[in-house]
Amino acid sequence: MSGQHLLSVADLGADGIDEILQLTDTFVEVSARPIARVPALRGKTVAFCFYEDSTRTRVSFETAAKRLSADTVNFSIATSSVNKGESVRDTVETICAMGVDALIVRHRSAGVPWQITRWVDATVINAGDGGHEHPTQALLDAYTIRQELGSVEGRKIAIVGDVAHSRVARSNVAAFTALGAEVTLVAPPTLLPPRLDDWPVEVSSDLDAVLPKVDVVYLLRMQKERMTESLIPSLREYTAGYGLTRRRVDLLADDAVVMHPGPMNRGVEIAAEVADLPRAVVTNQVRNGVAVRMAVLYLLLGSGVDLKPEVVGA
Amino acid sequence: MSGQHLLSVADLGADGIDEILQLTDTFVEVSARPIARVPALRGKTVAFCFYEDSTRTRVSFETAAKRLSADTVNFSIATSSVNKGESVRDTVETICAMGVDALIVRHRSAGVPWQITRWVDATVINAGDGGHEHPTQALLDAYTIRQELGSVEGRKIAIVGDVAHSRVARSNVAAFTALGAEVTLVAPPTLLPPRLDDWPVEVSSDLDAVLPKVDVVYLLRMQKERMTESLIPSLREYTAGYGLTRRRVDLLADDAVVMHPGPMNRGVEIAAEVADLPRAVVTNQVRNGVAVRMAVLYLLLGSGVDLKPEVVGA
Amino acid sequence: MSGQHLLSVADLGADGIDEILQLTDTFVEVSARPIARVPALRGKTVAFCFYEDSTRTRVSFETAAKRLSADTVNFSIATSSVNKGESVRDTVETICAMGVDALIVRHRSAGVPWQITRWVDATVINAGDGGHEHPTQALLDAYTIRQELGSVEGRKIAIVGDVAHSRVARSNVAAFTALGAEVTLVAPPTLLPPRLDDWPVEVSSDLDAVLPKVDVVYLLRMQKERMTESLIPSLREYTAGYGLTRRRVDLLADDAVVMHPGPMNRGVEIAAEVADLPRAVVTNQVRNGVAVRMAVLYLLLGSGVDLKPEVVGA
Repeated sequence: MSGQHLLSVADLGADGIDEILQLTDTFVEVSARPIARVPALRGKTVAFCFYEDSTRTRVSFETAAKRLSADTVNFSIATSSVNKGESVRDTVETICAMGVDALIVRHRSAGVPWQITRWVDATVINAGDGGHEHPTQALLDAYTIRQELGSVEGRKIAIVGDVAHSRVARSNVAAFTALGAEVTLVAPPTLLPPRLDDWPVEVSSDLDAVLPKVDVVYLLRMQKERMTESLIPSLREYTAGYGLTRRRVDLLADDAVVMHPGPMNRGVEIAAEVADLPRAVVTNQVRNGVAVRMAVLYLLLGSGVDLKPEVVGA
Repeated sequence: MSGQHLLSVADLGADGIDEILQLTDTFVEVSARPIARVPALRGKTVAFCFYEDSTRTRVSFETAAKRLSADTVNFSIATSSVNKGESVRDTVETICAMGVDALIVRHRSAGVPWQITRWVDATVINAGDGGHEHPTQALLDAYTIRQELGSVEGRKIAIVGDVAHSRVARSNVAAFTALGAEVTLVAPPTLLPPRLDDWPVEVSSDLDAVLPKVDVVYLLRMQKERMTESLIPSLREYTAGYGLTRRRVDLLADDAVVMHPGPMNRGVEIAAEVADLPRAVVTNQVRNGVAVRMAVLYLLLGSGVDLKPEVVGA
Repeated sequence: MSGQHLLSVADLGADGIDEILQLTDTFVEVSARPIARVPALRGKTVAFCFYEDSTRTRVSFETAAKRLSADTVNFSIATSSVNKGESVRDTVETICAMGVDALIVRHRSAGVPWQITRWVDATVINAGDGGHEHPTQALLDAYTIRQELGSVEGRKIAIVGDVAHSRVARSNVAAFTALGAEVTLVAPPTLLPPRLDDWPVEVSSDLDAVLPKVDVVYLLRMQKERMTESLIPSLREYTAGYGLTRRRVDLLADDAVVMHPGPMNRGVEIAAEVADLPRAVVTNQVRNGVAVRMAVLYLLLGSGVDLKPEVVGA
């Protein structure tokens, strides 16, 4: 993994992704210990700079940082001086002046994490920028597929739902195809991005036809707002066309897995009973998320040679 | 203390309560040390899953966890994906997939902590479910009575106020009577539960008649909402009938104590000057709350034989 | 530094301020270490009791406490029992009963930190009380001036803007004049306090005339509310008269520095391009804030003789 930051899956390339996934094995093992803690990042400080609330992503990173013995600092931007009209630049410069080694950034506008790298010396990790990228989500998803199916290469993966507004879809397409998977996007035309020419994917609007051919069906979260925006006629019609119902599960191959980035809308994009099937590996995704983020933090902040033995051999 | 969870006082029985109160003595001593910390739960993670805000209960548990060297993770449900329509089940499964040993749960609906035990492997501690139970409050109250008066057995205790809506009243009746106290509920009929047949208590609506006979007067918090619900005519009338005024304190025996779970409405259920009397042991209750919760966490999470000497003898 | 609390700059006197600033040098050095941590306050607990949100001040104190190995507890008063009508006294007594060594208090009413010292045994640090005092801000500003210019004594300092409503202005006037600086307040008459007779300052409403003579221009944050209160005609007119524009910077001596307590309103009290000049030392102020607060916490909580060598020599 070269570079100081993790902004985009594209920056990593197949080799960078692979390096992270291999190191993740180590941290899965660390996480299973009675005392799940290594001293790799002792004395480092990781700050959360979330302009959108996301308890689950924040806690996953926070748990990862603590298992590496880093300190964490939380900026609840909703109640901070941002509300007083302070610019993002002044806020992050202030945070970094207090002594921070990495900033985990979430913002509703695409590109903000890139801007921040120009303003501060700290390592910046993109934890979701608008509808653009969410690289650690793609890494944990790729790791989960490798864990469940042995490899990502050669797998057929359907990504189903609101691709147009989804940073998860964008990062996952980049990661899955970089690792050699074949990706099919399945969505109504209103929920596809306007230009797909340079996306290395197939596109379909017929979920029933796609399901029998795939190893992985990856469901995106459906936002109710899409109804009021007239992008879908109703949640019920969306479910009828694109929800993973009990009936549709029977179209899947026996060993195909069901994935979802969470939080799930049970009864909308995924039937409640489908979410509880063994082949739905959603909690594995969450569990792997902590280990993947440990690998990312370790590679970006702790790659001194002297620290590595502690992690690997402790 | 048998079992993996602490959901209800009734599950403990007199022996279970007594075991916790005895261990609490140890943790009161630990808490008084210059460095109030033992390594008993090093490597364990305690997560707070509060669907109702309660800074005081959360901080008490958090302080208890930290003194035992556990890590803590806070889910501010008000701002989390619960707002995005995620089910309680998916939320707690997600939390637990990140690696959590105990969930401290508060929810406005009775029974939710029991449901959660069916979904996750982690230890669940009920920190208040609707108007149902709040077992650690009852334990800290029983401990405080034992500390102030030598024992709970044989004591006469009046619980005064809005019993109908109070989980504190329910848990305290269970704990106090299990330990052999005689409990009298004092409230206007509108603030008593509809069926009291199987409660092992006396009932009265005449506070002045009850006060001279009791060792403990335990005041419940009066919610202003009870006025708009027409359960009481006004706060002033409530205070006239059921508030512990300065005049009423003179009806108490010399060594009787005044208790309140906090936060107090000074001037409503308790006169301001009464709250400041030495016999009002409210801050002792708070202080003991940390030690009681240390005992509960220790018994549920750290009961390995090898850990005990560190705690007792350190 | 005598006394148990830090409430006001006036309580410190020149000697007290000087003691803190000298110790701050040590903690600036500690903060620059790869592992910025000393064990000075291990086992101590610092609680944040903020009735007004202030992420930046809270995080600065929190970082300082953590570098000294203290534990921290955060009371988010906005969501706590204060909303249930609990008095400040009951809240802080509750916090302290849980075992707290220092309370960092911010409140919108002047004098609240003093009141709290009468109710609890813990050390109280004023982190801003209404328009009254903010002593650690003044200390970090004095330290920054000493760092930039060698000393505060004999320096000419202009404090510009809404002095009437500014606790920063009050504390800074006290600190700067105690250390021998000459302070000029520059503001429209509507933003000056009604009585200035006993302030040891000059007053001017002509910024252009003052700028050439000063070593430091200290800009106060302009609140938009002052417009609706008719204290200023518009932000644009305020900027025309009292904003540090690019043109006005050219009136400054070559080595004069520009300071601001943050968060800045770029384009109002300070032009965006001025905020980015090397002579604008705003991030240095933030950086020094952590070290100054380490010094304050150390002197108030950790002044045992045996701890000192660890800090100085570690």
